Formats: sequence, structure tokens, C-alpha cells
Amino acid sequence: EIADAAEALLGAGGVKVGGALRGRHVLVTSGPTHEPIDPVRYIANRSSGKQGHAIAAAAAAAGARVTLVSGPVNLPDPAGIAVHHVETARDMLAAVEAALPADAAVFAAAVADWRVAAEAGQKLKKDGNALAPLALTENPDILAGIARRAEGRPRLVVGFAAETQNVVAHAQAKLARKGCDWIVANDVSRDGGHQSGIPGGVMGADSNAVHLVSAAGVEHWPTASKAEIAQRLVARIAVALGPQESQS
Amino acid sequence: EIADAAEALLGAGGVKVGGALRGRHVLVTSGPTHEPIDPVRYIANRSSGKQGHAIAAAAAAAGARVTLVSGPVNLPDPAGIAVHHVETARDMLAAVEAALPADAAVFAAAVADWRVAAEAGQKLKKDGNALAPLALTENPDILAGIARRAEGRPRLVVGFAAETQNVVAHAQAKLARKGCDWIVANDVSRDGGHQSGIPGGVMGADSNAVHLVSAAGVEHWPTASKAEIAQRLVARIAVALGPQESQS
Repeated sequence: EIADAAEALLGAGGVKVGGALRGRHVLVTSGPTHEPIDPVRYIANRSSGKQGHAIAAAAAAAGARVTLVSGPVNLPDPAGIAVHHVETARDMLAAVEAALPADAAVFAAAVADWRVAAEAGQKLKKDGNALAPLALTENPDILAGIARRAEGRPRLVVGFAAETQNVVAHAQAKLARKGCDWIVANDVSRDGGHQSGIPGGVMGADSNAVHLVSAAGVEHWPTASKAEIAQRLVARIAVALGPQESQS
Repeated sequence: EIADAAEALLGAGGVKVGGALRGRHVLVTSGPTHEPIDPVRYIANRSSGKQGHAIAAAAAAAGARVTLVSGPVNLPDPAGIAVHHVETARDMLAAVEAALPADAAVFAAAVADWRVAAEAGQKLKKDGNALAPLALTENPDILAGIARRAEGRPRLVVGFAAETQNVVAHAQAKLARKGCDWIVANDVSRDGGHQSGIPGGVMGADSNAVHLVSAAGVEHWPTASKAEIAQRLVARIAVALGPQESQS
């Protein structure tokens, strides 16, 4: 079935996906967003962008036309991929909408749920009222917004979930709430991460242990490099999209 | 006088400070701090660490023993320098105190003035009360804390000020308030920065236009690379500390 077909595409070496996405447009988001507090301060998520960039690279290697929308990361732009650099969640949404239509969209970015309600034009000073609590407002929900589009929805919409507890249950709830097709869930707790004691465990690391959550059930993928996770996901995307249309 | 003596040390090429700090211990902080909100989110300052790292490297090139306390940056550790990597303002203060005594301390880090009052142990969820304003609490004031020490104060304490308006006036007020000897002030406004329109102007850029503010007055330094600013500052530090003690 689907997993077997993807395994066949992957091959024993885990890399034989060449051409499986030829003729497809795959949209990938990656990295964190930065939400300004004032000209010198911002709220950020921990996200290196390594997983999202690896997915973009794997999709390109599989023959797809890839659009990568990336928050601030310290990674080179993958070769041969159109990269749109953004800072805030609102910028990211605009770049994503501008990139549609797409056959598949993989939202691997760690988008800030909230931004500061009123960004200060000048640097906030300690004196006076600057210690007032920081009022927050909800950011646009890029994943749900795209997954629930009446028109122009990518055929396959994949979200990511970074959780510190009840990882699979939260991912299943997120799948239903967002209206997407798959959730790739990681445990980013100190314990769930298998790396040394840095906060956020998997964040910034080169390997990852994930669960693929869909309406069909939950698959627990073996711990693997982010490049291997990307190849596995891309193989699954190729199977889900089916044989490409004839190019003639 | 002092500026002339420093110019003489610098030499026409701006680089002849070798040996001027031999036998001295110079403590430098650099980079931003990250203040956790929960395991995946944090508040950060815009700071590449380039200026602080350049000062550490210049002090080492001038013969000093250098301790560099650095927040999260994407820069290599300068060769031959003991680097202590920290994340939060509290971590940075502890590392600074552990590094004393020092002959001179240069606080180039962009330390967060505030941290979140109650860091969440688990990832905050959108549902429920997570949109409550983020309560903040003041971080320790590393510059003032060291500058006002009764015992073990470095002979020369240098602070930095990143300002978006009234740059010199704010720096003079900061000098008095913190009890330090010099403030190196930069204008990080969109207009004050001379770089392209990225928020924070000078942040992350390779050059810098600064003012050196002390009880003696204000010097406006010419725009120069961060390495040149660092050499100029190190030459001034060498003059201020005076001839080194005999090594015999």
C-alpha cells in the first residue's frame, strides 16, 4: 500500500526518488519567524530551518519545481530553488499565497502563533511603563488558511507539529483543527530529543525522530538524519500525488 | 592627549597595537541574549556579535589575555580566546562574574532588559489563556552591576548603547546611570544606519559609525569597519590602562 509504494521509491539506499515529482510544483516553508517588539527586539521560535530546507532540496532532487519560503536562518539557499526570504508570519503568508498554485505544500516553518499587538517604532526604554506586560495578538494561521481554501488548495497539504508532551494526540488534534492532510510530528522536549541537553532537543540538530499522522493512522518513523526524513517524506508525497501527467 | 596617544598606537595603517595590552586581562561580552518564553519560543535582541567578537580579537592581537562571554551567535570562536557560550542575561552575568578580575571589561553584548516572568515548562498552546499578555521582569543589569562593584571593579568599564533617537544624549545619561567609564554609542535607527533598509540598520552589518562618550566629552568616530572600530577602541583601552607592569 502507500507506505510500501513509498519504500519502493526510496529504494534500499533511501535516495532513489529522482524524477518522481517531475512536473510538480512543491511549496515548502522553513525556519522560524521573527516578530518585532521594537527596532532591536523580537520574539522568535527555535528553528534552524534544517528540516524544511532538506525537504525543499529533496523535492527538487525528485524533479519538482520548488518554492521555498524561509524565515531568518543561517543556511545557504539550496541550489536551483526559488527562495523567498521573509521575517514575520504575515510576510510568510503573503509569500505563500503569491507562490500558489502548488501541487503540494509542506509547512515546515515554525511560525510564531503570536506577535506583539503594537510594535514600537522606537526602542523601548526601561524607564517608565516599558515593563508593562507585552500585549500579544494572534498571527494568521498559514497552515489552516491554505488547507481550508475553497479554491486553489494544493492537493496535498502537510503541516508540522513540534510538541513537548502528548505528541501524537496533539498532532491528531492539529490535523483535524487545521484541515490538512498530514502532520509530521516531532517531540522537541528535553527528553524526547535524543541530543545533548540543549533546550528544544531536536532544534538545530541534524537528526530527527518523527511520526507521520494522517486520517489513515500514525506511522512512527525511525530516527534518521533530517535529509533522510526529507527523502522519505518526498517519496510519500510522490506516491500521494500519483503518476505525473504526461509531458507530451 | 589621550586621543593622540591612541592614534599613535594605531599608526597610519590602523593596526599597530601589537603588544600594547600584554599582561592585561580583558573581558568582552558579545552577541544577544535569548530569554525563553517556553521550550520553543524566546525573546531576542538583534545582535550579530560581530562588533564584540572583533573587539575580543583586537584585544588578543594587542597581547591581552581575553575572556569572551558570548550569547548565541553564528560566528566562529576567535582563535586563541577563551569563549564562554551563554544564552540568557542571567547566564551571562554569572560567566562575567566568574571571569573577574579583569583590567578592562567591554560590554558589547545586547543584553535583554527583560525576561519573561514565568518561563513555561511546556509549550504554550493557543487554546485558552495563552494569549494573556506576557508578563515581563527586569533582567540583572550586568554593566551597572560590574561598574558599581565596591571590590574587584575592572579599572576600565566600557558599555555600549544602541539607540534609535537622541543617541548621544541617551548615551550620556546611560554613562551616568550605569557608573561606567565610557559608552560606545551607535545609532541603530533605519536612518542612522547607513546600510540598506533592514530594520536595525547597523545590526549584522560589517561597518559601524559610533560615538565614544565619556566624562571628558564626546568623540564622533568616522564610519569604519567593525574590525577598525575594534582596533581603535583597543588602542584607547591600552592608553587608558597605561604602560603595562614589568614582566620581570
